[in-house]
Amino acid sequence: MKLSARNLLKGKVVKVVKGAVNSEVVIELPGGEKLVSIITNTSVASLGLKKGKEAYAVIKASNIMVAVDE
Amino acid sequence: MKLSARNLLKGKVVKVVKGAVNSEVVIELPGGEKLVSIITNTSVASLGLKKGKEAYAVIKASNIMVAVDE
Amino acid sequence: MKLSARNLLKGKVVKVVKGAVNSEVVIELPGGEKLVSIITNTSVASLGLKKGKEAYAVIKASNIMVAVDE
Amino acid sequence: MKLSARNLLKGKVVKVVKGAVNSEVVIELPGGEKLVSIITNTSVASLGLKKGKEAYAVIKASNIMVAVDE
Amino acid sequence: MKLSARNLLKGKVVKVVKGAVNSEVVIELPGGEKLVSIITNTSVASLGLKKGKEAYAVIKASNIMVAVDE
Amino acid sequence: MKLSARNLLKGKVVKVVKGAVNSEVVIELPGGEKLVSIITNTSVASLGLKKGKEAYAVIKASNIMVAVDE
Repeated sequence: MKLSARNLLKGKVVKVVKGAVNSEVVIELPGGEKLVSIITNTSVASLGLKKGKEAYAVIKASNIMVAVDE
Repeated sequence: MKLSARNLLKGKVVKVVKGAVNSEVVIELPGGEKLVSIITNTSVASLGLKKGKEAYAVIKASNIMVAVDE
Repeated sequence: MKLSARNLLKGKVVKVVKGAVNSEVVIELPGGEKLVSIITNTSVASLGLKKGKEAYAVIKASNIMVAVDE
Repeated sequence: MKLSARNLLKGKVVKVVKGAVNSEVVIELPGGEKLVSIITNTSVASLGLKKGKEAYAVIKASNIMVAVDE
Repeated sequence: MKLSARNLLKGKVVKVVKGAVNSEVVIELPGGEKLVSIITNTSVASLGLKKGKEAYAVIKASNIMVAVDE
Repeated sequence: MKLSARNLLKGKVVKVVKGAVNSEVVIELPGGEKLVSIITNTSVASLGLKKGKEAYAVIKASNIMVAVDE
């Protein structure tokens, strides 16, 4: 499947924190940056996400803001 | 100002494409990954975004999805 | 690629309206409902979207609201 | 009230899973597709959502991505 | 129709800037704050939005971030 | 840091409800309107959010919908 989301960053899962409905999933990029994602527990299970697994952070372009130092 | 958004990725603006209301802004991270953002033209102007400027991509954790290779 | 987005609705593209940066893409589901999506022109091109093509509407669960009749 | 959100899909609530702050609400469309939504518990209570109730899934066009089979 | 979105702010439209696909709509609250929204042109037309019209800004709770002064 | 988000509303935190992963934070504007936000617990802690603290609600323009009375 090919997706319209313009941003696809490959990394490795380094942490999964499970809540009642949602989980927090942390993905580390090769350069060391960490991305924090909130997805449902059902998705965590269906993708088999756990520490060490390769995964992509996927972000729609309209959900990225920009900031600059003042 | 300190923001609740959990994801703040520092990079450099490498492209700005202006539309009628929105612009597409491409930020390159130090590791070479490119992030594409859609923000309003007014924001592009008020932040002074242009090729070569340092900038951050800012993303709320609930707006990041996760994918895995099948 | 397998995605964490919980909502994946298969249909057919029935309209593409191109703007300067974004396009409006309308997907009709088998039951006749129409879904309207705004994605970048670059995505429209890279996915080869045009009238008649099979496509999926993909929606993160946290982006769906619920309403009821009063 | 009339809303700018371009996508309004009528269905029936088939599941509500309550967490500490958010709930997962599943709406089945007449054609059998299921949509999963994450909304706050307060919204679930104020809308009186429960299994069997008619409800709409409401989605802003900029929150729908598109995918195609490869 | 009653909506799950937790945030509904009543005000008056003070500006509409039309693009090719999307429009920028500015709503002024009674306290003088201005809210800027990007919605499709089709929504602007179907809601009859124009300067002076009463309107609500509608925001899902998961789309509001928080910031503090440092 | 200066942010592309077009909407920045100053107010005071009047409630924080903590869940397993996410918290609900309510900010009251000077005019008395209340805004409800869902952010991660980690953000609540790192911003030191608690009842009485001054804070801003931050919203990207593409995440604001518009509604009118019928």
